[in-house]
Amino acid sequence: MVTWHLDERSVVMPIAADVVLGAGACVLHPDLVNLYGCTIGCDSTVGPFVEIQRGVVVGDRCKISSHGFICEGVTLADEVFVGHGVVFTNDRWPRAVNGAGRLQTRDDWLLERTAVGRGASIGSNATIAPGVSIGAGAMVAAGAVVTRDVPAYAVVAGVPARIVGDVRERRAEPRE
Amino acid sequence: MVTWHLDERSVVMPIAADVVLGAGACVLHPDLVNLYGCTIGCDSTVGPFVEIQRGVVVGDRCKISSHGFICEGVTLADEVFVGHGVVFTNDRWPRAVNGAGRLQTRDDWLLERTAVGRGASIGSNATIAPGVSIGAGAMVAAGAVVTRDVPAYAVVAGVPARIVGDVRERRAEPRE
Amino acid sequence: MVTWHLDERSVVMPIAADVVLGAGACVLHPDLVNLYGCTIGCDSTVGPFVEIQRGVVVGDRCKISSHGFICEGVTLADEVFVGHGVVFTNDRWPRAVNGAGRLQTRDDWLLERTAVGRGASIGSNATIAPGVSIGAGAMVAAGAVVTRDVPAYAVVAGVPARIVGDVRERRAEPRE
Repeated sequence: MVTWHLDERSVVMPIAADVVLGAGACVLHPDLVNLYGCTIGCDSTVGPFVEIQRGVVVGDRCKISSHGFICEGVTLADEVFVGHGVVFTNDRWPRAVNGAGRLQTRDDWLLERTAVGRGASIGSNATIAPGVSIGAGAMVAAGAVVTRDVPAYAVVAGVPARIVGDVRERRAEPRE
Repeated sequence: MVTWHLDERSVVMPIAADVVLGAGACVLHPDLVNLYGCTIGCDSTVGPFVEIQRGVVVGDRCKISSHGFICEGVTLADEVFVGHGVVFTNDRWPRAVNGAGRLQTRDDWLLERTAVGRGASIGSNATIAPGVSIGAGAMVAAGAVVTRDVPAYAVVAGVPARIVGDVRERRAEPRE
Repeated sequence: MVTWHLDERSVVMPIAADVVLGAGACVLHPDLVNLYGCTIGCDSTVGPFVEIQRGVVVGDRCKISSHGFICEGVTLADEVFVGHGVVFTNDRWPRAVNGAGRLQTRDDWLLERTAVGRGASIGSNATIAPGVSIGAGAMVAAGAVVTRDVPAYAVVAGVPARIVGDVRERRAEPRE
């Protein structure tokens, strides 16, 4: 495990100077991420091939697995697990250009926010639609596309994701 | 925003010398992409962790988001949005080896081409099957798997993707 | 094609010293992968933005495409094709922390193993749930979420993946 530290190579590192890393936070491969304007909580880890955008707040003791994308508008509470290849979204109608045919700027679209509750887990390759909330302790199965709010402790799976169980009973089998 | 420029470090940059970048085109993190043999149109942007293969043509004012993969045989018209983690495909029956048990070469499989029309948007983590066409202005919801042609201005969602609305009415809610 | 070789730059390469590369194995962009503790068989190729974890065994003449994630517990036989953005999993109930609220360690979860048979193909952006087996020659369609064992030579597609054909007949059309 390699702890990120500023050194003479940092000028080429794709971790922007405005990233706030809490005590014990660890970016496993600082050369292989793109982090800017975000806050990573204490003792959280960030894997390779991850992008975390401006304004994102990652809580303490979170695990952000490889290949994840966390966009502006997302807040993760403490102890959230984000699987490999998870993609959050914040724009219901994404376009390359605005109505005038010019590249969109931040003024051209409506940001919808996403909150993930304490201890929730987002399975690998899951996709989170704009504006949903995922409750504390919930579990999103791998490959799910979450389009509605997920209650606390619910297990959801599928496209679109449906409730298939409750983590407190561990009766749901996400693979079924 | 960092504009790509050739310098003494370019020998190790994974942007091949045969890439054609139009005026104003921007590769946000040239150290974190793999581009070769492709053409990127004027004022288009390419995010980190993107691979674009030989022969791909990206139009003007397109936005290619992080973690995307655009394979040989794909053509994007102007003003196309490609979300995070989008994967195009071009081989209906992919195999590691040919019938003789040798690693496949370009002679061993049939390339099927994909065209994306002007102003279309491909939502994050969507997968595009080989040989489909996506019409102008169409919108593919996040997480969809597109297996059939998408008409111009249609909104499609799900696995396999079905038409759920028309962007000109903005009545479809991709999250539903 | 750039063949990986140890040189003075290798100290910063994210290919760990404990990776075993067979004769002719090729990591196309050694600066853009994260490989550790794994074995890559003879003449196999590994694309950019790939992570392969400790204990993984990749057979001979395999092709691991860009953006793939192959976790501990996965074994690929010879001549397996792994598409772009494919994610394997090994933990049915992933969590960031253990019951005591401390970051999970290897002792806190049950690893479930996945075996992929000779000559099988995993389509791009597919997700493989923990503990499944994928038979020899099978084909997983792009974007599928595999939650049950896949018989040899079966074609599976969808979320969750269902059998839609047999590769020996090539009658299934994964795009339908």
